[in-house]
Amino acid sequence: MSFTRFDKYVDRHARAFTERLQAMCRMPSVAARGTGMRAMAETVAQMMQRAGAGTRSFTMGSGYPVVYGECGAGSRYLVYGHYDVAPVGHLTDWSYGPFASTVVDGKLYARGASNSKGDLVARLAAIEAYQKSFGKLPVCLCFVIEGEDGLGSPSLRRFVDEHSEMLTAEGCIWDEGYKDPTERPVISLGFKGITFIELHVHGARTDLHSKWGAIVPNPAWRLVQALSTITSPKGVITIDGFSSHLAPISPEDAEALKTVELDEAGLKREFKIGHWLRGLKGHALAKEHIFGATCNICGIQTGHTGAGPKTVLPSSAMARLDFRLVPDLTSEVVLGLLREHLDVRGFQDVEIVELASSPYAKSPIASGVARAAIETAEEIYQVPPVVYPMDPSSGPVGAVCGAGLEPTPVVSFGTSYAASNPHGPDENIRLDDFLQSVKYFGRIIHHLGQQSRHRSGSHPAQSLALAKR
Amino acid sequence: MSFTRFDKYVDRHARAFTERLQAMCRMPSVAARGTGMRAMAETVAQMMQRAGAGTRSFTMGSGYPVVYGECGAGSRYLVYGHYDVAPVGHLTDWSYGPFASTVVDGKLYARGASNSKGDLVARLAAIEAYQKSFGKLPVCLCFVIEGEDGLGSPSLRRFVDEHSEMLTAEGCIWDEGYKDPTERPVISLGFKGITFIELHVHGARTDLHSKWGAIVPNPAWRLVQALSTITSPKGVITIDGFSSHLAPISPEDAEALKTVELDEAGLKREFKIGHWLRGLKGHALAKEHIFGATCNICGIQTGHTGAGPKTVLPSSAMARLDFRLVPDLTSEVVLGLLREHLDVRGFQDVEIVELASSPYAKSPIASGVARAAIETAEEIYQVPPVVYPMDPSSGPVGAVCGAGLEPTPVVSFGTSYAASNPHGPDENIRLDDFLQSVKYFGRIIHHLGQQSRHRSGSHPAQSLALAKR
Repeated sequence: MSFTRFDKYVDRHARAFTERLQAMCRMPSVAARGTGMRAMAETVAQMMQRAGAGTRSFTMGSGYPVVYGECGAGSRYLVYGHYDVAPVGHLTDWSYGPFASTVVDGKLYARGASNSKGDLVARLAAIEAYQKSFGKLPVCLCFVIEGEDGLGSPSLRRFVDEHSEMLTAEGCIWDEGYKDPTERPVISLGFKGITFIELHVHGARTDLHSKWGAIVPNPAWRLVQALSTITSPKGVITIDGFSSHLAPISPEDAEALKTVELDEAGLKREFKIGHWLRGLKGHALAKEHIFGATCNICGIQTGHTGAGPKTVLPSSAMARLDFRLVPDLTSEVVLGLLREHLDVRGFQDVEIVELASSPYAKSPIASGVARAAIETAEEIYQVPPVVYPMDPSSGPVGAVCGAGLEPTPVVSFGTSYAASNPHGPDENIRLDDFLQSVKYFGRIIHHLGQQSRHRSGSHPAQSLALAKR
Repeated sequence: MSFTRFDKYVDRHARAFTERLQAMCRMPSVAARGTGMRAMAETVAQMMQRAGAGTRSFTMGSGYPVVYGECGAGSRYLVYGHYDVAPVGHLTDWSYGPFASTVVDGKLYARGASNSKGDLVARLAAIEAYQKSFGKLPVCLCFVIEGEDGLGSPSLRRFVDEHSEMLTAEGCIWDEGYKDPTERPVISLGFKGITFIELHVHGARTDLHSKWGAIVPNPAWRLVQALSTITSPKGVITIDGFSSHLAPISPEDAEALKTVELDEAGLKREFKIGHWLRGLKGHALAKEHIFGATCNICGIQTGHTGAGPKTVLPSSAMARLDFRLVPDLTSEVVLGLLREHLDVRGFQDVEIVELASSPYAKSPIASGVARAAIETAEEIYQVPPVVYPMDPSSGPVGAVCGAGLEPTPVVSFGTSYAASNPHGPDENIRLDDFLQSVKYFGRIIHHLGQQSRHRSGSHPAQSLALAKR
């Protein structure tokens, strides 16, 4: 099928699509502030309806609505997005008002333009263009748009728990991705999981005068000694049995890994660090970044660290850790191994408290959504995409796509570019990238439809989830 | 010499001495607040003058004055005190106004009554009674009264540095001590030294997203790994060469140690702890408390430990440690050993910053001041004193008595009792203890005079330090 009509439609409506995005970016929907969130959720539902979707909003407790919308019929594919944006930080750091939606030199400056209202508007625009150019969608796209990306997605997680049947799908399209500094689009085939925990050790009732240090157990020392057994001085995780749970990297993933190159010098400059962990570099560095499980100290709090010469023997000590999970690690496995590891070494006094967790999500490169995204990218971007077998970040993606016995394959890409600065000041996207995204998504829809036709005919189980209720 | 006249004088003036103390306790001299400090210093000088002392105030920079006073002639003995008091904390925790100087059931309730205005007033009262009963003092008592006990004594330390010749003395009498729960007076023959340091490790320029944890060095892990090498999981200091600097305990000290018994059950209840470090108890516990060097973690600060699910890779990590020093440890030895210990293990990236230090002070039990305090105690208290060969706490005592090549023997005792609560609410002393203190100090003066007479006649080098300037 030729995309000439489709592309012409997109080009003719470029201004309208851009204005739609600008209007959306003028609505400040900072979840952390809670302003304008319900208005934004309603606007999202209306935009979906205008694209022909049936919608339903799910409000979990006092959270912000999860807006669900279905468009088309046939094989079901989830499309994730979020309508909340990050806090703007210091206004004086911005060149343009963060909610003014200013276009300068082909770039739209706005909080949320990159992360990720641009993706949502582009994907809905692609549906409109597809329907106007070719008629009905060849598949059923199920949009799941949450408003709590900045808050750890509590409503979405509850939605997933309570409405898992609505999330049954052939695949899922996520919204993280960008063009790297060499202008190659980055596509990810999964995300690491995460387990976020605290370790607690308790000592005397209150902080004591440190003259008691010779005879009163110090919980800070206990914590340090316990922590020191779970990684080596070189930074290798040394929890008993941990490494045996790490799945080998498949030949396909190893192949995809070859396309990934970190901008080592640029990142070192940005971070102001002299070397990488264990002196890693090149291919080994990229492999560790993408497939390495982590055990990271996020913070430690104990005793007195404020001003003044106060020498105390702390009454308690706490460390916050996050583990990034790669196949086949689960939160249960990590916590079980850690508990046993500490117990065996006499650290029964070190309490483990789980704060939050998300499973990893990992798709085979041969999955339908991965193929659709990878095989159509070059047509739009003129260069082969960089394929991350796994994105080192984590999020609710594991809850949506990775939880069940049969995980849903997920692929992720986006409208941003290397200088989009999605969490900082002057967040922006290039309007050319935005329109490319519309065209790219149209081709992905088509590719998914072709896959569907190649599979066995009808999909009776895939009737509208909305119609069922 | 009979003390009948002396004791009668004290008894007759009991009310006047008490009122003098009450008046002093009505002056709020909280160094941390800075209110009324200079008025208090002037009052201290006037009280000394009334007792016949020549005085001089030394103001170092913007600090509170060190009030120096000399009374009597002959062998010189330092008498330490401080006129500042601890902050009062929450007023609602007090049964009486902390500066109302209320007497109830024979107890004087006031901030500073125990720590340590009671000691200063008692000692000056003893001088007055001694002179009225026997004439001139047989020795020269050199009072050194600072106003920054609660601030780490910066002015006193500078005073010691700049006027070391004024501190040349046969011995020194400190003001820490109390009657233990069995009503036995506690006498200390020294104080541990202290070295207060920070360890710093630096990482990336700012806290990073913890998705970088697989490849970016985490300074919190470096700190934990470095710390874990300097003590064992059981709490033994494992710095290379450290133990070889610990002097053996002398037979006299070992003998004195036998009189020391900790109220293990009571302290465990107070601290709410189930056991002592390494399961110590009895004699071994007391020995460790008194002669054990310590390496105590006072606090650790790194990363994000506040509210919210923020997983960061910290940009820096800091631990604050204090070492309590026993013979023959010095701050230089400890810092030198620690640096080498860390370097040998590859922790050159762990920076050591010295914040403050004081040497230990340690007197032989055969020293004049020790003998005077120990041999006269039973006459007053009817029971033999508990002799701590070393007090586990630290302070400027090491700077005053322990710094030179020939340290000045120090002995410490006080007017308080087990329930004096010197840093908490309802600080109080018993007026009977206060009057006993006056009588006790009179006998110590006499004992020192006798020692002086037994030594070779005149002391030409011990002319008044004040007269020299």
